[in-house]
Amino acid sequence: MINITLPDGSVKTFNEGVTPMDVALDISEGLARNVISAKFNDQIVETVTPLEQDGSLTLYTWRDELGKKAFWHSSSHVVAQALEELYPGIKLTIGPAIENGFYYDVDFGEHNISEKDFPEIEKRAIEITRGKHPYKMREVTKKDALDYYKKQGNEYKVELISNLEDGTITFCDHDSFTDLCRGGHIPNTGYIKALKLLSVAGAYWRGDEQNPQLTRVYGISFPKQKELTEYLELLEEAKKRDHRKLGKELELFTFSQKVGQGLPLWLPKGAALRERLEQFLKKAQKKAGYEMVISPHIGQKDLYVTSGHYAKYGEDSFQPIHTPKEDEEFLLKPMNCPHHCEIYNAKPFSYRELPKRYAEFGTVYRYEQSGELHGLTRVRGFTQDDAHIFCTQEQLDQEFKNVIDLSLYVLGSLGFDHFTAQVSVRDLDKPEKYIGAVENWEKAEQAIINAAEEKGLDFKVVAGEAAFYGPKLDFMVKDALGRNWQLGTIQVDYNLPERFDLTYKGSDNELHRPVMIHRAPFGSMERFVALLLEHTGGNFPLWLTPEQAIILPVSEKHEKYAEKVLKSIENNEIRALIDARNETVGKKIREAEMNKIPFMLIVGENEEAEGTISVRRHGGEDIGNISLDDFADLVETEINSTLKTF
Amino acid sequence: MINITLPDGSVKTFNEGVTPMDVALDISEGLARNVISAKFNDQIVETVTPLEQDGSLTLYTWRDELGKKAFWHSSSHVVAQALEELYPGIKLTIGPAIENGFYYDVDFGEHNISEKDFPEIEKRAIEITRGKHPYKMREVTKKDALDYYKKQGNEYKVELISNLEDGTITFCDHDSFTDLCRGGHIPNTGYIKALKLLSVAGAYWRGDEQNPQLTRVYGISFPKQKELTEYLELLEEAKKRDHRKLGKELELFTFSQKVGQGLPLWLPKGAALRERLEQFLKKAQKKAGYEMVISPHIGQKDLYVTSGHYAKYGEDSFQPIHTPKEDEEFLLKPMNCPHHCEIYNAKPFSYRELPKRYAEFGTVYRYEQSGELHGLTRVRGFTQDDAHIFCTQEQLDQEFKNVIDLSLYVLGSLGFDHFTAQVSVRDLDKPEKYIGAVENWEKAEQAIINAAEEKGLDFKVVAGEAAFYGPKLDFMVKDALGRNWQLGTIQVDYNLPERFDLTYKGSDNELHRPVMIHRAPFGSMERFVALLLEHTGGNFPLWLTPEQAIILPVSEKHEKYAEKVLKSIENNEIRALIDARNETVGKKIREAEMNKIPFMLIVGENEEAEGTISVRRHGGEDIGNISLDDFADLVETEINSTLKTF
Repeated sequence: MINITLPDGSVKTFNEGVTPMDVALDISEGLARNVISAKFNDQIVETVTPLEQDGSLTLYTWRDELGKKAFWHSSSHVVAQALEELYPGIKLTIGPAIENGFYYDVDFGEHNISEKDFPEIEKRAIEITRGKHPYKMREVTKKDALDYYKKQGNEYKVELISNLEDGTITFCDHDSFTDLCRGGHIPNTGYIKALKLLSVAGAYWRGDEQNPQLTRVYGISFPKQKELTEYLELLEEAKKRDHRKLGKELELFTFSQKVGQGLPLWLPKGAALRERLEQFLKKAQKKAGYEMVISPHIGQKDLYVTSGHYAKYGEDSFQPIHTPKEDEEFLLKPMNCPHHCEIYNAKPFSYRELPKRYAEFGTVYRYEQSGELHGLTRVRGFTQDDAHIFCTQEQLDQEFKNVIDLSLYVLGSLGFDHFTAQVSVRDLDKPEKYIGAVENWEKAEQAIINAAEEKGLDFKVVAGEAAFYGPKLDFMVKDALGRNWQLGTIQVDYNLPERFDLTYKGSDNELHRPVMIHRAPFGSMERFVALLLEHTGGNFPLWLTPEQAIILPVSEKHEKYAEKVLKSIENNEIRALIDARNETVGKKIREAEMNKIPFMLIVGENEEAEGTISVRRHGGEDIGNISLDDFADLVETEINSTLKTF
Repeated sequence: MINITLPDGSVKTFNEGVTPMDVALDISEGLARNVISAKFNDQIVETVTPLEQDGSLTLYTWRDELGKKAFWHSSSHVVAQALEELYPGIKLTIGPAIENGFYYDVDFGEHNISEKDFPEIEKRAIEITRGKHPYKMREVTKKDALDYYKKQGNEYKVELISNLEDGTITFCDHDSFTDLCRGGHIPNTGYIKALKLLSVAGAYWRGDEQNPQLTRVYGISFPKQKELTEYLELLEEAKKRDHRKLGKELELFTFSQKVGQGLPLWLPKGAALRERLEQFLKKAQKKAGYEMVISPHIGQKDLYVTSGHYAKYGEDSFQPIHTPKEDEEFLLKPMNCPHHCEIYNAKPFSYRELPKRYAEFGTVYRYEQSGELHGLTRVRGFTQDDAHIFCTQEQLDQEFKNVIDLSLYVLGSLGFDHFTAQVSVRDLDKPEKYIGAVENWEKAEQAIINAAEEKGLDFKVVAGEAAFYGPKLDFMVKDALGRNWQLGTIQVDYNLPERFDLTYKGSDNELHRPVMIHRAPFGSMERFVALLLEHTGGNFPLWLTPEQAIILPVSEKHEKYAEKVLKSIENNEIRALIDARNETVGKKIREAEMNKIPFMLIVGENEEAEGTISVRRHGGEDIGNISLDDFADLVETEINSTLKTF
């Protein structure tokens, strides 16, 4: 008999050789129907793996991340089988599950494959799934494994097996298909009710461009057809909301091959939008007692040696800038903190003057490989809405709460009301990984947890995820498509005050070390604007959007009146323009819709006679014929309902 | 007989051998009394040099730059004589006139000299001047010249003479003193009525740090004692207004050895002041139809190869930034124009959409040798208030005028009402120096001259000073001490549109090249703030100054009322703070004076009872007891009287 411990802590006794599926059945038939994978003593196992000793067992369904992983990995076997049948002689390499679905890297030899072949492959794959073939793992000797693939002439699998140890090698069989595989499958192919191939792309064997190029086939699968349909709709919507596409259409930003990849150029509308975001945050920061500073975009290499950034990132980032005589070395700044420490050091402070809160929209440069670059979300230069708070240990608690308040205000005013947060604390078993006094760590961690609780955040505490210099809190938001984005961070730092020898004179007349808080509610202006674009689909909050209204004169005759309307609403600080082209109102409306302008103000005979405007909202809602004052009130009311109070 | 042409074009006939002084006498006795130097056929000559051929003669008095130069160079001979007499055995090297005065570089051998020795040297120098010794030039053979200085053991003069050609070597004698000298003296030492030594400093022979170190003695002299007194007062005032000193005292900016020299860190008060300047210009620019853009601080090396900047500055500036794999090269941007050209290129434009006016507060980096760095006026990183206008040739005229209007508005609002301007045009004799069609040059030069005339600028046209790519207009302002500062520039550019292949579609449906205007009214934020500091002595215009008012409670009892006053005036957008320290009002006033806060608001028993404030202006003026509303009006009125309309 063996003892099986379940995640809720309960212990059940079974005969040796019991399988995870047996345990599920023992709990409930409903559970057994849904279990698709399991973990036993930190090892992923099959649902049919016999358990031979005491241990902890976790059962996974489709709702669990690891359940999905098993589902998608199992699906890649099915697709591989279909490909082998349809394209004889191809060589399979690896086929893992990924965040959304799976892929299989294949050497197609003389065959070519493109998206138009997908329906045939999908058709065969679905046929296979309907056979409800169980996945069966079996151990093979290294020799047998090598022989199997040598006979096929598959040098990729041979290379993989050569690197494995005898006694650890397993094959997985289902139907007529066999693959080298470490395991982690659903019970049988019948669980896969819907399967779709998404794209093909080139990929180098083992990711090394010296190696042969393979074809990567991406796919996804679901336990229900409806879920696939929903996913494909989401994908379609995500494509429409792709910030690179919207950024181009709305003329917010661009990239130039000549300037360099990953270095955004903000076009007038984008720069103005960013300026509004920055002014919005500046205003809130001013209320919260921050002071703006400005620091250069380079610093002597020695500055980053002092801060420790050079040791950590120097080799992998932009290389040092030499002066003509080669006697000085500078680096593009990867962070603003060393500069702000030097600003703090510019004069002595007493405890009465703390906290000092230095804020800067600081543009930093970090090298990313060109393959990693992606629109505004992965760039080589970006502007952090950065600030560093220098305070006493006693002030830490209150300061941390204040930063959370500011972050909630900022994100709330931009339409993000659903947060989760992660508090990252020490791994208590590895005290050697962290610098600074234990009592300070305890205070700081407690301060963060207290603050998160008091502010009612939906947060989890994760041990071992703290930086070596202090604990932190990270915000995550879900966008309109349910995707998670990592946003701003609040970090406590005991390291830089030490390295830069920061001090203040205490009430005891002695010098003390301040604590530092790093924080950035947006994270970076680039990433945040990308998120906003994808979250809103380009329909920015009214207070932020490039043009709030467009005036559409019905004909040339009404242009003068249109100008009058423009002047009047501009006096009410409404951003607007006139579409005076010689086009039909219908066409002007269609284009204004495409440009995502919130209000269309149509002016013709009646409006001019009455001194009114006919207001149509983006999306089609007809607000009707109203006065200019009423329109100004409407805009003001809507803006005030979006902007939170602070 | 020879013909002498005077600057007004008139020609006079004299006997051969006539001297410039004779010519002066012939014109008027008054002129002859004032003439101290002359130029004949582009050669500086003595006032007693016999003229032997036809030619053009210019006579100089103390009011001319070249007159001052002769005066100060002659004075350096007198000081050298005094030094030789007082410190026997010293070795003289060179003693030129400089912008303000002169210096002499001396190898003092075993002697030491410091400022406390100045009175004795000055006393002897003045005695020499009273002797009214004429300066007498004579030619010497190279051999005689070398022998003369070899006998003295003066290896410096020997080295100088060795590099000269026989037949061109002259000595100058006055009193008992002789010096190797190319000439350019006043008639006799008696013209020098006041002389003062200013400082000593180390200097390397020929400016090379491998060479022996010499002592540089700085001095200045004047034809009237009163002028020396005024100059010394000015010098004293300039020291008080040194922007480096004021910047530190007012906590506007700092430098850090760790961050790097020449890289300013803007402290909170400085950053806020700069933000106000930027917002002020942004507002005006918005009215003038500019659009803000944002570009990165680096660009691929190739970008600057295309623009031509790399060929011109690459070797002498910050060196390229390599990526870890060394396969890409970037440069810190020395200018924003290439980036703005790429922004223009992001989409096609029709003539109807021009002009495009792209503005950016763009921080650029240019290497300067550490010896050249000076506070905020010579730095390695600075932010230009840059903009580039892309327009048709037909629009150039109007655009140029608009830029002048904007510049006059901006500088006028900051208290600079006295401008001069220089229009730099082609050298018509060297057409090969310039690119672009001759007819465009003609139009552009005429456009600038027309604009300068129409706007009533006090300007001169200088041929040959245009950039190779186009003509330009530079503004100069005189600060409160009468010193000239080169400020913003407006340049026409035919080159970059060519190099970046910029086009627009004309009304003829063909592609055309736009013209580019570069402009920056402030020049750079750093340099402009330095100028403002020195011009105002830290007493910034009221709309710009860090704190507009400070509230001084007479005692602790009145702190609550002080808070009420603060809230009330902050609601009127007045920047203020409270000095709540337990100090006397007298001390608080003294400190507020030092911090150059425009208004001190004293609140005590009476004020609290009446709900008023007692207002004292910076500098001492007592405005008396007034209501808070009256104070808000006072501030508003003063601000409105400073800010021009635009």
